[in-house]
Amino acid sequence: MHFLLHEHAWNRVRERAGFIAPEVTPCVMCKDGRLLIAEQEVSRDEIEPDLAWLSMDLMYHGQVPEFVGIVTKSKKLKWVQTANAGLDNPIYREIAKTGTRLCNSNAQATPIAEYVLAEVLHHFQGIDERRAAQRNSKWRYQRFREVSGSKWLIIGFGNIGARIAARARAFEAEIIGVRHSRKAHALADKIIGQGDVLAELPDADVVVLACPITPETTGMVDAEFLGAMKEGSVLVNIARGALIDDKALIDGLGRGRPAHAVLDAFVTEPLPADHPYWTHPHVALSAHSSNAGSGIFKRGDELFLENLSRFLRGEVLRNEVDTQALL
Amino acid sequence: MHFLLHEHAWNRVRERAGFIAPEVTPCVMCKDGRLLIAEQEVSRDEIEPDLAWLSMDLMYHGQVPEFVGIVTKSKKLKWVQTANAGLDNPIYREIAKTGTRLCNSNAQATPIAEYVLAEVLHHFQGIDERRAAQRNSKWRYQRFREVSGSKWLIIGFGNIGARIAARARAFEAEIIGVRHSRKAHALADKIIGQGDVLAELPDADVVVLACPITPETTGMVDAEFLGAMKEGSVLVNIARGALIDDKALIDGLGRGRPAHAVLDAFVTEPLPADHPYWTHPHVALSAHSSNAGSGIFKRGDELFLENLSRFLRGEVLRNEVDTQALL
Repeated sequence: MHFLLHEHAWNRVRERAGFIAPEVTPCVMCKDGRLLIAEQEVSRDEIEPDLAWLSMDLMYHGQVPEFVGIVTKSKKLKWVQTANAGLDNPIYREIAKTGTRLCNSNAQATPIAEYVLAEVLHHFQGIDERRAAQRNSKWRYQRFREVSGSKWLIIGFGNIGARIAARARAFEAEIIGVRHSRKAHALADKIIGQGDVLAELPDADVVVLACPITPETTGMVDAEFLGAMKEGSVLVNIARGALIDDKALIDGLGRGRPAHAVLDAFVTEPLPADHPYWTHPHVALSAHSSNAGSGIFKRGDELFLENLSRFLRGEVLRNEVDTQALL
Repeated sequence: MHFLLHEHAWNRVRERAGFIAPEVTPCVMCKDGRLLIAEQEVSRDEIEPDLAWLSMDLMYHGQVPEFVGIVTKSKKLKWVQTANAGLDNPIYREIAKTGTRLCNSNAQATPIAEYVLAEVLHHFQGIDERRAAQRNSKWRYQRFREVSGSKWLIIGFGNIGARIAARARAFEAEIIGVRHSRKAHALADKIIGQGDVLAELPDADVVVLACPITPETTGMVDAEFLGAMKEGSVLVNIARGALIDDKALIDGLGRGRPAHAVLDAFVTEPLPADHPYWTHPHVALSAHSSNAGSGIFKRGDELFLENLSRFLRGEVLRNEVDTQALL
């Protein structure tokens, strides 16, 4: 059996992977594009992987298309582990078409949850004003808004939504989760369905978008949604840009509903240089990097190694997705 | 029985206090200094309170000395509820001398814990750099340090320390608490005594000072303490300025131990305009306002009303302090 992975990923896990799977031959994709088996360069056509690990390294080095090209032409492909959480990128449709098993990742859930709390606390506490007072050597007793007692509406209650909830709850926030299944969840005070979101918006201090993009959720944050939001509330999008109607959000921000938006995902990425979000006084934005925590490589490696071991022993895989839904 | 309290405090609780304690006569200290009983102005000498509530309102309006003057000359004084957590202000020695019972407050513990997490997350995530990239319309994938997996040393594990721990734990931080009693605590992975702090410092990513100021803790953060800190670590002081040797801290910051200091308390307050902390690139400071959360009045009112009811029914008071220790 052959497995395909990036050079950097291989360097991090080679000892442990060799111990777990001595019978599997690694095919290493180097940073410079060369392919190696047992340290000998091979051509693209000589590689037909059984297993493949689409790790963050490939995304950092822009080598995803090249990697996916090799993976999808393999006739032997049985399992792919990816570092992505959301699988709306068309490459996953191509991968699903091969009939392989596919696992996504929850390695980003922890840093994304940290990002959300950091940005909401930053806004609630007025840290920019606190720093401005310091720059002016001004001793000023500055009141701030507490998370304690605030109400959070978390739309999408998968790995990411639940981790945000766990942290906000430790701050004594009330958590309303939105789940397709409407199934109760230990980390939410209440779970509702998508159809009940509009009714909850007028009471929500913080609204977090943490759901997949589907035909049902595309453009969900429209004029009606924004009009129902609470004055002074905060909207956070760490999912996909197309969940939001951008024009409607800019109108809403002008009316204080929401008062502040934290945006990490956009319809077009990189966000075009002339987009009004860049300079909007009530928008805090980042370059789709809410997942960029220091622990993601380590967490991704652990997940891959655990699933490699499970795959070889014929056990249930963690984070296996229904590939039929991608077709 | 008479109880003395501020006009604003009375306006917030009058209905509920009247229901809990119809037999107690309020003596109201107005914002303009007048004293009222049953809406009639009375002189200082006509008031001899049995109970007194030293609420945040008195601190905001600079009326604490006047209030304490009336309280300490009362021969009937039986119980004082204060809004302070730390009782090192000399007024508490004067109050203790009267032989009264005294309760402190944990109403600030929640906002202080939020402040600590907000400032640590702000630093770990490099939010200032994130905002600078936005101002320059620069799409930049910015890595950040996670709280997950970091080690926190919380010196002083009372109400405030424990609330900081509860929040940091939800972020998957490891918690070492420092307690005089060395008694285990459900919110700490390990509890140590003051004597073991130096041994823990080399591993601590975040060190929080949340202990009272005593002869033993004064100047605790000295050259030896700072020299033992981990490179890149963060020091947070939300307790008292005199815990830190300021000259030693400025030296330590120059060597990256700690890399960053969050300071909310100072030896001299307001902090003098020419103090080097104001302009230090690795200091984030605030005007003793880590307690300034939106919920402190409400939380203080609840504590007072509960203790008023407990006092009148002869029940155990919440947050009663050992006044002998203040003499």
